[in-house]
Amino acid sequence: MKAKVYVTLKPGVLDPQGKAIQHSVELLGFAGISDVRQGKYFEIALDNSLDADGAREAAERMAKGVLSNPVIEDYRVEIE
Amino acid sequence: MKAKVYVTLKPGVLDPQGKAIQHSVELLGFAGISDVRQGKYFEIALDNSLDADGAREAAERMAKGVLSNPVIEDYRVEIE
Repeated sequence: MKAKVYVTLKPGVLDPQGKAIQHSVELLGFAGISDVRQGKYFEIALDNSLDADGAREAAERMAKGVLSNPVIEDYRVEIE
Repeated sequence: MKAKVYVTLKPGVLDPQGKAIQHSVELLGFAGISDVRQGKYFEIALDNSLDADGAREAAERMAKGVLSNPVIEDYRVEIE
């Protein structure tokens, strides 16, 4: 089973890395870009000792406790 | 319009950052994790000068040319 965790900065938190990417792509000639924000993405392979509910619960706990900083970041978990 | 770009290491490319995360979460007591891989995630807000096809084309070009290293990374683009 695979869990996918997406971590993004909360709206309102400044994203200087995203701004740098936006500036760079504009210099490279891409037009019509109004904002770029960078996040993180994790693919977690889980063995078969966990069922779908257990996998989601473990992935949520991992996302909240280890993979994201809940003060400035949101996370989203998908189970496949 | 918003483009979401997911960049992941190609299968077979070593991911020491993912291995470090896997080791850490195991030390923290999470069981049943067989692999962790880290990727990147970008949210690109596009203004209305582009239609859906143009937005996809621009996002694909950006993903291929700027946001990923096509030698070791794959990318996936979603338009919303």
